[in-house]
Amino acid sequence: MAQNETIANFLDGLASSAPTPGGGGAAAISGAMGAALVSMVCNLTIGKKKYVEVEAELKDVLAKSEALRATLTGMIADDVEAFDAVMAAYGLPKGTDEEKAARAEKIQSALKVATDVPLACCRTCREVIDLAEIVADKGNLNVISDAGVAVLSAFAGLRSAALNVYVNAKGLDDRAFADERLKELEGLLGEAAGLNERVYEVVKNKVN
Amino acid sequence: MAQNETIANFLDGLASSAPTPGGGGAAAISGAMGAALVSMVCNLTIGKKKYVEVEAELKDVLAKSEALRATLTGMIADDVEAFDAVMAAYGLPKGTDEEKAARAEKIQSALKVATDVPLACCRTCREVIDLAEIVADKGNLNVISDAGVAVLSAFAGLRSAALNVYVNAKGLDDRAFADERLKELEGLLGEAAGLNERVYEVVKNKVN
Repeated sequence: MAQNETIANFLDGLASSAPTPGGGGAAAISGAMGAALVSMVCNLTIGKKKYVEVEAELKDVLAKSEALRATLTGMIADDVEAFDAVMAAYGLPKGTDEEKAARAEKIQSALKVATDVPLACCRTCREVIDLAEIVADKGNLNVISDAGVAVLSAFAGLRSAALNVYVNAKGLDDRAFADERLKELEGLLGEAAGLNERVYEVVKNKVN
Repeated sequence: MAQNETIANFLDGLASSAPTPGGGGAAAISGAMGAALVSMVCNLTIGKKKYVEVEAELKDVLAKSEALRATLTGMIADDVEAFDAVMAAYGLPKGTDEEKAARAEKIQSALKVATDVPLACCRTCREVIDLAEIVADKGNLNVISDAGVAVLSAFAGLRSAALNVYVNAKGLDDRAFADERLKELEGLLGEAAGLNERVYEVVKNKVN
């Protein structure tokens, strides 16, 4: 996806019958919005007298959240590329036994990439959640709801990307490869679910 | 927010120390992505022989999801407008008793709008979740993960907008007005939480 695509155009493309952008791109955008909101809370806390004690820590959080935001924004395109490679492999000729074998091999290697790309998105969203927890605890109270939206967005991004891991891992013949990814994924999902609810409650109590 | 703003620019603005766009805009985008993904599943189901029995129903879902997407996209700008009105009211002069009274009144009326705008976003996201449930049950199996991402995005949008309802309702002197909104909100959140998990499980079982 081009960096200069507009939001309205992206949503039009998401809604259309074109296969990409789809849920994988939406997952990456959710994660990127989460990272951006962590940065926003940092930017509105750093430099304020009242928050001088947490300034050094939030400067460090900001550097990390901006790096994660760049990574997640790049994953919008990675998702399209991985999907296109799977589709291209399925489109290869299958007239002869040799062609069939080459096609099957290409499909399997493309599915491995298409499993690892959303898994990387899950890992990155998980890191955003850790940063959202810090800003929910220590950020400027005037914008603390944005820390809550940050964790909700990142968690939605993680669970959304997880669905794409499942879809692609299902088609893999290499079950050891698939099971290793699925095991990591369950760990990420479990930790993130607990953190998401904890951070949401912290923020809800601060804004109520 | 201009319709032709790019995603990268929107994320830059979200991350910056400018107060808008913030969590309210991110909530509306999450909801709009949910609606767009419902539309995508409809568009990739309608016209397929295998799904002829659900075609009429999904055409109806598509018309509704596209209307909800337009509403949610418009709410990105509504959120900025409501926030700016609150800030403008706080900025009014407060030198004399008359000025103080006029300012207090303006703040209260702006906060009522700033409570109702995210509540409308919550209601609209709730409607997207109902449509996501239908497409998760009946949509084309090849893109069923997108129905799962639809429900996750819409639910994240609802909970995100809810935080902005809390923030603004807290400042209201008219407690009857506030309590009525908060009561409706709790109903929306409770129903949506159950539906979100149900739809996610339906999709997860189909892709595993």
